[in-house]
Amino acid sequence: MKNRAAYMTELNKMEIREIPVPEVKEQEVLVKLEYVGICGSDVHYFHDGRCGDFVVDGEFMLGHECAGTIVKLGSGVTNLTIGDKVALEPGITCGQCEFCKTGRYNLCPDVQFLATPPVQGCYENYIAFPANMCFKLPEKISTKEGALVEPLSVGMHAASQGQIGLGDQVVILGAGCIGLVTLLACKAYGATDITVVDVIPKRLEYAKKLGATRTINGKNTDVIAEIEKLTNGMGVEKVIETAGSPVTIAQTPYLVKNGGTIVLVGLSADPEIKFNFGKIMAKEAKIESVFRYRNVYPKAIAAIADGIIDVSGIVTHEFEFDHIQEAFECAINDKDNVVKAVIKITE
Amino acid sequence: MKNRAAYMTELNKMEIREIPVPEVKEQEVLVKLEYVGICGSDVHYFHDGRCGDFVVDGEFMLGHECAGTIVKLGSGVTNLTIGDKVALEPGITCGQCEFCKTGRYNLCPDVQFLATPPVQGCYENYIAFPANMCFKLPEKISTKEGALVEPLSVGMHAASQGQIGLGDQVVILGAGCIGLVTLLACKAYGATDITVVDVIPKRLEYAKKLGATRTINGKNTDVIAEIEKLTNGMGVEKVIETAGSPVTIAQTPYLVKNGGTIVLVGLSADPEIKFNFGKIMAKEAKIESVFRYRNVYPKAIAAIADGIIDVSGIVTHEFEFDHIQEAFECAINDKDNVVKAVIKITE
Amino acid sequence: MKNRAAYMTELNKMEIREIPVPEVKEQEVLVKLEYVGICGSDVHYFHDGRCGDFVVDGEFMLGHECAGTIVKLGSGVTNLTIGDKVALEPGITCGQCEFCKTGRYNLCPDVQFLATPPVQGCYENYIAFPANMCFKLPEKISTKEGALVEPLSVGMHAASQGQIGLGDQVVILGAGCIGLVTLLACKAYGATDITVVDVIPKRLEYAKKLGATRTINGKNTDVIAEIEKLTNGMGVEKVIETAGSPVTIAQTPYLVKNGGTIVLVGLSADPEIKFNFGKIMAKEAKIESVFRYRNVYPKAIAAIADGIIDVSGIVTHEFEFDHIQEAFECAINDKDNVVKAVIKITE
Amino acid sequence: MKNRAAYMTELNKMEIREIPVPEVKEQEVLVKLEYVGICGSDVHYFHDGRCGDFVVDGEFMLGHECAGTIVKLGSGVTNLTIGDKVALEPGITCGQCEFCKTGRYNLCPDVQFLATPPVQGCYENYIAFPANMCFKLPEKISTKEGALVEPLSVGMHAASQGQIGLGDQVVILGAGCIGLVTLLACKAYGATDITVVDVIPKRLEYAKKLGATRTINGKNTDVIAEIEKLTNGMGVEKVIETAGSPVTIAQTPYLVKNGGTIVLVGLSADPEIKFNFGKIMAKEAKIESVFRYRNVYPKAIAAIADGIIDVSGIVTHEFEFDHIQEAFECAINDKDNVVKAVIKITE
Repeated sequence: MKNRAAYMTELNKMEIREIPVPEVKEQEVLVKLEYVGICGSDVHYFHDGRCGDFVVDGEFMLGHECAGTIVKLGSGVTNLTIGDKVALEPGITCGQCEFCKTGRYNLCPDVQFLATPPVQGCYENYIAFPANMCFKLPEKISTKEGALVEPLSVGMHAASQGQIGLGDQVVILGAGCIGLVTLLACKAYGATDITVVDVIPKRLEYAKKLGATRTINGKNTDVIAEIEKLTNGMGVEKVIETAGSPVTIAQTPYLVKNGGTIVLVGLSADPEIKFNFGKIMAKEAKIESVFRYRNVYPKAIAAIADGIIDVSGIVTHEFEFDHIQEAFECAINDKDNVVKAVIKITE
Repeated sequence: MKNRAAYMTELNKMEIREIPVPEVKEQEVLVKLEYVGICGSDVHYFHDGRCGDFVVDGEFMLGHECAGTIVKLGSGVTNLTIGDKVALEPGITCGQCEFCKTGRYNLCPDVQFLATPPVQGCYENYIAFPANMCFKLPEKISTKEGALVEPLSVGMHAASQGQIGLGDQVVILGAGCIGLVTLLACKAYGATDITVVDVIPKRLEYAKKLGATRTINGKNTDVIAEIEKLTNGMGVEKVIETAGSPVTIAQTPYLVKNGGTIVLVGLSADPEIKFNFGKIMAKEAKIESVFRYRNVYPKAIAAIADGIIDVSGIVTHEFEFDHIQEAFECAINDKDNVVKAVIKITE
Repeated sequence: MKNRAAYMTELNKMEIREIPVPEVKEQEVLVKLEYVGICGSDVHYFHDGRCGDFVVDGEFMLGHECAGTIVKLGSGVTNLTIGDKVALEPGITCGQCEFCKTGRYNLCPDVQFLATPPVQGCYENYIAFPANMCFKLPEKISTKEGALVEPLSVGMHAASQGQIGLGDQVVILGAGCIGLVTLLACKAYGATDITVVDVIPKRLEYAKKLGATRTINGKNTDVIAEIEKLTNGMGVEKVIETAGSPVTIAQTPYLVKNGGTIVLVGLSADPEIKFNFGKIMAKEAKIESVFRYRNVYPKAIAAIADGIIDVSGIVTHEFEFDHIQEAFECAINDKDNVVKAVIKITE
Repeated sequence: MKNRAAYMTELNKMEIREIPVPEVKEQEVLVKLEYVGICGSDVHYFHDGRCGDFVVDGEFMLGHECAGTIVKLGSGVTNLTIGDKVALEPGITCGQCEFCKTGRYNLCPDVQFLATPPVQGCYENYIAFPANMCFKLPEKISTKEGALVEPLSVGMHAASQGQIGLGDQVVILGAGCIGLVTLLACKAYGATDITVVDVIPKRLEYAKKLGATRTINGKNTDVIAEIEKLTNGMGVEKVIETAGSPVTIAQTPYLVKNGGTIVLVGLSADPEIKFNFGKIMAKEAKIESVFRYRNVYPKAIAAIADGIIDVSGIVTHEFEFDHIQEAFECAINDKDNVVKAVIKITE
């Protein structure tokens, strides 16, 4: 067993080296990783050395969207066995604080989240991980799909925070990777009329292909007027913002219906945004937000296995482990075309 | 315009006669009915003269699962127009009691529900009905499907009361019409593992065809043992009882998981049932019940239009209006084969 | 029976005249009004000729916070009788739109709300009103308290939107009338630690007297730092904004805890506000808003009757009907001292 | 430091002996216990050797309602300090199963609950306990009150499962200890009209003293007729069953209102009960159940500290540690008078 790991050694520079295969402790399993996706946050760390308030200090292993096969069991593990394909939920929480105890473990202040400094990520062959955060994939789901459960979970948590339900009419602002997984999630949660808005035609094509009822190019169409027309001036029950632009965030009060819900998923570079709260209050609308996800993996896996969600449709690029530098460069330079790039972790 | 109506003149006897076309009042529309289904309650009134606490007194028009086309508008109607195909929600409520005001209008004590004595039903050509209870069908939905929105709504309300959600594991007890629409609804609400139980092989075939993950024949299989095996002794999150038999109602505490929900839909002939509350409490399970439905029609129509639900699959028998006597006899005598019979209302 | 009514004939000018006693229609009662409060919106209409998007056109009767005694019953009224003291919920809704049907009748687009142009208010002796919007006051509640049920309902709806519950820690921004009724409501809903913030010492005194755990004068204290200190940097579960100032609205993301809820009640003159959504999302906080109230009157009356809420404590000024001009001038000129002024409607 | 512990050595026999003071592990604290209550389950184990499915095997230490003072900190404990008074939540859960992760840790199958065989209880001087299950008592709450947080939590969880809210009308069946803490909890959650039913006059006196709006002696009054009269035949929104008798459990469908909720707290000796589900379904009522509690301690302590709940009122008997045998005999022989007996743990 040889363990190779890709480290970001400086800005825009990735280097693969050999590191020890980790020890497996009690209640842990050793997973041979097969696919690890590239997340927007990975790209930010790689290119800018930071993402939000988190700053890379020294050499750092990125990667947290991952799946593989169990090769070793720590003591006390009973629910998994060697050979099981698993998707890893990358945030290890304390299980004891008020947030964990009330089922909102994604808000645990002591979470250890892969590839969020100072916690190392998983662009590597082997990782030792708590068994209870490894979710078994049924036979028909590949580990490539397994690695996509992580980004899909963000979309599913968004749909869940927005209480998307059967027959809902939804507007999704932004058709990047998170916008598209949110689209898949909204359909799975029962939305029957989904308008996706972006300014990049290629992305709107993807949205259409993945099942949007209609798309609007915000560059040449007045989104607010269009939704007003479409809904007889009522607005839609649910608006999900994934673009993270001040412009689109500011549009949400105009798109939502009386008593409706806005879900904020996309982070704006400038956290302060001018926003029409008067409209929100006249409509008694609600604003929900999304920080990662919780209790979503089992549902996501069930939905993929059942065919309700075809997550493979979001992978536009695949790279061998040895080409990880190239993969990141592609994600940076060709970002209009890249929905999701994944790394195939080879020995 | 000639209005013909089928009256139950005595037990097991249906007679078609001509009656006046009703006047259309303010905020009402005149609907030319095209399809009216036969509900289990219609059969009970026809055959037994009663259903639950409601008793037929004198000649009575049955029928409440209906759809047709608008032929006249009363004053003040703005949201509908002549020629619109509509499904009629058959319960007219007061809009002013505490139940109506809190959105639980199905519990309104002053509800006027079609074909619930003393309120006449709708086996007839023309009905005048409140515009706000007529739901427009999109082009692609036929009035035959429209008539099925009513029974489907019971299944959808059952799924809604049980908060069926994406990835849920469900057991449905009973595969009669209500069991099968509940199956359709659970799938639409995202359930990914649905076991349907009945004792009649024909019904289990229907269930399988309509998308059950698996079926169990309770006649020759120990249902409790089977579900235990299937779930490693954990039970399922949601159990929906539609058979209305004391045996199946009494099984529910054994099938449900810790913290899970039982939904009671099927009415037992004997309302008093011996039930293991000790098991319920040890599991902290919840029991929800279903009385008709509320706020479901728009969702049901959206789900059918979207293709999420194919409701036409539940129609096993269709009869011309003039054969309504035969239709009821078939529903009584061939009940293992009849999932849903509909009457085509001809002039 | 003589009916006198106070009309706003031009800006800042009130005139009492005699008008006919209204006819009582089916399902209505005739109420002899005894107390009508002065709301902030009344003052806005009186002084500015408008409130939000609503503009006074021509002579206009203000007033909507009212209670009185039933003197006549329309046909069909069964739940009330002559001599009953009642509080009137001033918004008459359609009972038939999707908002009404789902129990969110405060969002009904066809609401007729007293003293919201063009619907006349109730500074008058007699009003004919739907029986189902008249809530009987038990013996021990006076009609003066009855008139206060309306403003109290705003505070209760705010507490309800914020899901204030037993043991909650709350910050209320603003200690005007709405801030203070929100304080009363939060206590009634079980909050055990309530910090009230304002910049006017007199108001903070009122807050302390009405049961605030502590008060902060935002003029000379850094509210964010203070709450941080008080909560070990965690923030509070619930923040309710009633001041309607861009400054306090912008403070809310800094005061709320991970997973907490902000409730917006106070309308800002400028509807657009710069707001730190980055903080909201990092905390996965939720923002609820308040538009009037719904289904609150019965609870408010029960809480007052039970002694859980002493609403009489918010009345700082009382005027005879004939001094209504003076009452409005006082409300305008002495607003730091006026929490709630009420008009005693005399013949 | 000397550690004395009371063991049940055989049925109806308690013996105090010296045992080692336990070691404090990481994240644990050593608590010097001061008060430990006697629960109904303790009495069952003591007298019958079993409670429900749990059987005492060999010598066994009872007791789980406890509070004391911290005398030693294990490594890693930061939120508590030596000298802190604490109440102990007696169920230690895994923090990692699906129930724990979704905030329903009371349903964790691996819970270690004090005095539930084979887990030893805490009639002893010293216990080592996880710091995150020790809840600090503010200065004004005594450890005697602290020991009562445990039974109070059952009542609070019952009120919470029933979503008791401001202005609710409640019937509580049974006025034993759990009925009375449920009464205290319902009042704290805002119920304004609470009818308590029992057959023992002494208990009804307690109920009246603790704030019941009215009491009914079910021995000489027809409870169903009485509640019907009181509510104009509507029934009450919430019914909480704490008596655990087949008779009272069977009454609940008759007492509850349309759309109302029944909460089952009392365990019947015979788990199977004949129950009118027909009535439940005609009313679309809901049945919730209670298994211990979750996330209640902080709220209970806040409510006691605030004065919303005066839990000391339920203690009717207090015994010195050396008289523990006598205490249990009293609890068995004088059960009509004993609401709650507590043991003062002396050295």
